[in-house]
Amino acid sequence: MKAFSYSILTFFFIAILFLGCTNHQSKDQSYLFQPRKMFAIPEREPGQTDVIELKCEPIDNVRIAIIGLGMRGSGAVRRLSYIEGATITVLCDVVPKNVEHSQNILREMEKPEAVVYTGPDDWKEVCKHKDVDLVYVCTHWDLHTPIAVLAMENGKHVAVEVPAALTVEECWQLVNTAEKTQRHCMMLENCNYDFFEMATLNMAQHGLFGEIVHVEGAYIHDLRWLNFDDTTGYWDMWRLKHNERFDGNLYPTHGLGPIAHILNIHRGDKMDWLVSVSSNQFGMSEYAREHFGKDSDYSIRDYKKGDMNTTIIKTHRGKTMMIQHDVTSPRPYSRIHMVSGTKGFAQKWPRMGIALEPNGHYWMPDDEMKELLEEYKHPIVAEVGERAKEVGGHGGMDFIMDYRLIYCLRNGLPLDQDVYDAAEWSSLVELTRISVANSGMPVQIPDFTRGSWEKLKKVTYHSL
Amino acid sequence: MKAFSYSILTFFFIAILFLGCTNHQSKDQSYLFQPRKMFAIPEREPGQTDVIELKCEPIDNVRIAIIGLGMRGSGAVRRLSYIEGATITVLCDVVPKNVEHSQNILREMEKPEAVVYTGPDDWKEVCKHKDVDLVYVCTHWDLHTPIAVLAMENGKHVAVEVPAALTVEECWQLVNTAEKTQRHCMMLENCNYDFFEMATLNMAQHGLFGEIVHVEGAYIHDLRWLNFDDTTGYWDMWRLKHNERFDGNLYPTHGLGPIAHILNIHRGDKMDWLVSVSSNQFGMSEYAREHFGKDSDYSIRDYKKGDMNTTIIKTHRGKTMMIQHDVTSPRPYSRIHMVSGTKGFAQKWPRMGIALEPNGHYWMPDDEMKELLEEYKHPIVAEVGERAKEVGGHGGMDFIMDYRLIYCLRNGLPLDQDVYDAAEWSSLVELTRISVANSGMPVQIPDFTRGSWEKLKKVTYHSL
Repeated sequence: MKAFSYSILTFFFIAILFLGCTNHQSKDQSYLFQPRKMFAIPEREPGQTDVIELKCEPIDNVRIAIIGLGMRGSGAVRRLSYIEGATITVLCDVVPKNVEHSQNILREMEKPEAVVYTGPDDWKEVCKHKDVDLVYVCTHWDLHTPIAVLAMENGKHVAVEVPAALTVEECWQLVNTAEKTQRHCMMLENCNYDFFEMATLNMAQHGLFGEIVHVEGAYIHDLRWLNFDDTTGYWDMWRLKHNERFDGNLYPTHGLGPIAHILNIHRGDKMDWLVSVSSNQFGMSEYAREHFGKDSDYSIRDYKKGDMNTTIIKTHRGKTMMIQHDVTSPRPYSRIHMVSGTKGFAQKWPRMGIALEPNGHYWMPDDEMKELLEEYKHPIVAEVGERAKEVGGHGGMDFIMDYRLIYCLRNGLPLDQDVYDAAEWSSLVELTRISVANSGMPVQIPDFTRGSWEKLKKVTYHSL
Repeated sequence: MKAFSYSILTFFFIAILFLGCTNHQSKDQSYLFQPRKMFAIPEREPGQTDVIELKCEPIDNVRIAIIGLGMRGSGAVRRLSYIEGATITVLCDVVPKNVEHSQNILREMEKPEAVVYTGPDDWKEVCKHKDVDLVYVCTHWDLHTPIAVLAMENGKHVAVEVPAALTVEECWQLVNTAEKTQRHCMMLENCNYDFFEMATLNMAQHGLFGEIVHVEGAYIHDLRWLNFDDTTGYWDMWRLKHNERFDGNLYPTHGLGPIAHILNIHRGDKMDWLVSVSSNQFGMSEYAREHFGKDSDYSIRDYKKGDMNTTIIKTHRGKTMMIQHDVTSPRPYSRIHMVSGTKGFAQKWPRMGIALEPNGHYWMPDDEMKELLEEYKHPIVAEVGERAKEVGGHGGMDFIMDYRLIYCLRNGLPLDQDVYDAAEWSSLVELTRISVANSGMPVQIPDFTRGSWEKLKKVTYHSL
């Protein structure tokens, strides 16, 4: 694998050399280098077409299989039980008591019991199950793409937890399978449905920020205790293992999703390339030494993941996006969610505030901001926001996400997040790793739409 | 100049190619690429030695020439008049009424009148003036290095406004001249002396943040109105011209200075390389169109400076620094000033807050933070903080800076900021420009200490 990477790199070194030499005569001298094209764009197979704004046959009663019933999956069981036209028919997890717990939720909600699966490979059966329209994937990261692909190949729609894929190759598997099968593949990026995020999307679409120039997002969340919890933490400590194996931004989508929609990524703009830099690793080892002793297994492991990863993305239309990831440092939670344009500014963390011209230099007073947020409340939030807060799930955003997924499937509408979102946002997992390993070298972001990114002019969350 | 740059680049393309090929056998495979070594390190001339912790003969009465008496210079005249042992002997500016205004300040402060100079080349005379120990430079950016170099060559100490230099070549001029003449060259980075910044430096040195992993700084300040003000704005609109000519981070030091000292840069760690990405330019043109009409000269100019520049620096000890520059977007002022370590976290903008283990996940309540800031008030602030607030100058930090400069000169102590700080921080002006022009390509940051960065273990602001 490493030898293969080296070969690719060497090839591109040579390509760059010639590019560098021939570029002297270029009229546009603003870019002396081009970002590395690490990944070729595979051609579409005959008959395969893009799934931009894909509409499928309406499904009056969406029958759902949930695979993975740990922290996220059991929450989904409960939330989906509140939604009309959603029926959980299958529950699957390798931990029998997780399945039983979710079955109990169904009983408490006075819903029919689901068929249950607990074998390690049972997800393959579930993907083919006749009483399933939608496979809802909440497993550990490594199974996201394999399950999503098999489910689509069996004619199911797919909703898959973040990140949907761990490599660019997996991203293409998702895109190609969705295009071949014309099935929906929505990544469950719940943060797009949070209240301030949706209001700022609405404000952006109404031009309040002017031309948007720069946006920021992050996943900054101290997860050390969960990563090192071998009983109630992540199943089989899978997340700790990812910290051990990989550097880069392992979990980019919570910060990226909302600002990517605000910038209309693959609806008129696209992400061209990125640079990514990680600090060294300090926090995991220090935490392990203090909690398990300096000679403990946890203390002597070589965690590849640097504590803080910072990534900058340049878009085709000249915008910049700054994305951070830190799950190791003791600091207050933040996804930043910052939007800066020629007419205004908004930021959610560490201080929620808005500033608009002609007073862009000053934070709007809180009561004025509250009024503005009410005025620009996203229509979807107006529709289900209050109910979402009652049902809960990260303050309501999880419910809005599930509600929208089922609403669009029932009405044959394009989903809010398509397979290209899933691929673009998830591709950062590997692309940042490559950039980090190469001292921040710029790396091109593949156009997963293969040229269809200009078909639309903006992001639309469809309603009848 | 451009052809020369291309030649250098082509040379390093080739070097990289071979590096890439030979690197296969390298044992340390964590870095496949190396950042571009754009600038060779010039050798020291015989007899030239480093000026780490330079001590010079105490000067009981520091006689000061101030060159440049616009916004910054006239403020310095007033502030320095409050300081015992500081005497302004020479005033110099090409605008006679600026000189007269400063002379009036001296009169109001009941100080002796200064000798005045108003010719365009008179700064050269001033640098040689016999009644001057310290040349204090507040001109437009292009003259900072030429004046500083000539003053040191004439045996004067130098204090120079930010940035001290505009190119790596100018940075070396400052370093080499300071080393040859053994004179002080302090950049007037006032933000290092702001109250929260000094408290966090003190906390960092007392270990409150644990091992510091990641820091952030910025200069985010909407200056559009000043840049386009042809009467009371910058002299001859020099700052607008810089926005026209150059991309990158034109003004990196306010954000970088305080966090560089917190990371003990060139006192045990050093900045190794950076990547830098700018958004395109949107805001200047839009502002010009709205204020001067779409056909106005200002509207049709090609401003090179992208609105938002984001830079990531990697240090030798594996820390990361994120630095931003935006003087075009309507948004509240921010220098961020963020410090994140394995034991705690602090941030000044957009919300001032601190979080420390074992409650690192939560913002400390405001009253608790106030107590902590009082407890860790920097000794220098304890000494002159109250007086600084009375005198003013950006809330007091300008006065603390001047006070410290004069205090150290009078007592023969090393200055708080040395010529390597000036060079390192200012070098970002050109280094970011190169990275931006090359799509974020990593660029090495020269070691201006030529190996002396490990002599010290930490930053010290000396007192008797």
